[in-house]
Amino acid sequence: MDKETYTLLENYMLECMGDSAHDKDHIYRVLYNAIDIAEAEQNVDYDVLICACLLHDIGRKEQFENPKLCHAMVGGDKAYRYLIENHFDKDFADKVKHCIQTHRYRQNNTPQSLEAKILFDADKSDATGAVGIARTLFYKGTVGEPLYSLLLDGRVSDGTDDEKPSFFQEYKYKLEKLYDRFYTKRGNEIAKERQKTAVTFYNDMLKEVSDSYDRGIEMLKKAIGEV
Amino acid sequence: MDKETYTLLENYMLECMGDSAHDKDHIYRVLYNAIDIAEAEQNVDYDVLICACLLHDIGRKEQFENPKLCHAMVGGDKAYRYLIENHFDKDFADKVKHCIQTHRYRQNNTPQSLEAKILFDADKSDATGAVGIARTLFYKGTVGEPLYSLLLDGRVSDGTDDEKPSFFQEYKYKLEKLYDRFYTKRGNEIAKERQKTAVTFYNDMLKEVSDSYDRGIEMLKKAIGEV
Repeated sequence: MDKETYTLLENYMLECMGDSAHDKDHIYRVLYNAIDIAEAEQNVDYDVLICACLLHDIGRKEQFENPKLCHAMVGGDKAYRYLIENHFDKDFADKVKHCIQTHRYRQNNTPQSLEAKILFDADKSDATGAVGIARTLFYKGTVGEPLYSLLLDGRVSDGTDDEKPSFFQEYKYKLEKLYDRFYTKRGNEIAKERQKTAVTFYNDMLKEVSDSYDRGIEMLKKAIGEV
Repeated sequence: MDKETYTLLENYMLECMGDSAHDKDHIYRVLYNAIDIAEAEQNVDYDVLICACLLHDIGRKEQFENPKLCHAMVGGDKAYRYLIENHFDKDFADKVKHCIQTHRYRQNNTPQSLEAKILFDADKSDATGAVGIARTLFYKGTVGEPLYSLLLDGRVSDGTDDEKPSFFQEYKYKLEKLYDRFYTKRGNEIAKERQKTAVTFYNDMLKEVSDSYDRGIEMLKKAIGEV
């Protein structure tokens, strides 16, 4: 890909992403991770890969406005239309569309091409480790969901089997299970390098808040004459 | 304090805090930490302490609506008025007001009474460790500030000397420096127990994103024919 084409696609991505620095930073991390992953693979089509990375989340706005829509499906169609309008080959546009439409974890719609597998792994790797924890907590702030839920006895739930959304619920339901879902050698390696940080953070945070509630509830009961 | 008085104050707190579970959870953690800290001290007035913990952030709404206001000053006055209206002693209301008005880190307005020092430490301890990291990231999400800023060469700034707000900036400017500002023995102990988790998380996250940008930027340059 030449510099001019890259800049054209980058500008279209920036236009679609709106003003969230957080969302744009994610795109660059995915792009950089994808190129890193690609280096350990053979016969990667870098043009397809770079284009798919830049445009993989351009359907986010549509999904945000209508949660019934899937940003991967919308984004794939949107990227295809944009590429055809800008005189890219139909074959190229098709390949990019496949990558974008399969980058979400969906059992009935999995990545088939090498470039789609690389995008999938690069995107998932941004949900691993400290950065995955940070993005999840940041997201909980944007939607106003709590860090944890309380059990009926007033103590902290570790997130397992929680029905209400919270950071601990998301960790147990999604983040914890990510690490064996990678297609590529280098994607798997990045995930494994980062796993310990995420596990340690969750365990330490659970211990901090659980200790605080467990000790505090008992001592408060004494202080207000309940025992 | 009897159960009835506790419930009265708890309900007033809940009324003032609005519908953010995140903010209410902070109040209970501070209360529980304060009672934990108090146990290692002599001659603590638990009534003043429990009341001050429950009401320490009731000025948040006013500060949010008018950022020129200080939630500690507003909250102290608001708590004083509420206590007088509800027939608590003037001396009691004065002591609670002092705790609330000095719980923020301000050089010209430091906690003098033992209960004020305990509230200060209990509140600060909720900014330490994993929970401090989690609350900061959550807050960045609510105000839409990014995880980090980029340097002029496109690489990730570690937050030192950053002018723009971000998670890394907040870590360097505030979180990293918290750990030697505790008044009480147990407050200091809680902070020190939690310090390693926060430091490790920041270092690991900085390494994850820096590695991604440093490797990625060079490889991308090659891929788009810039070198």
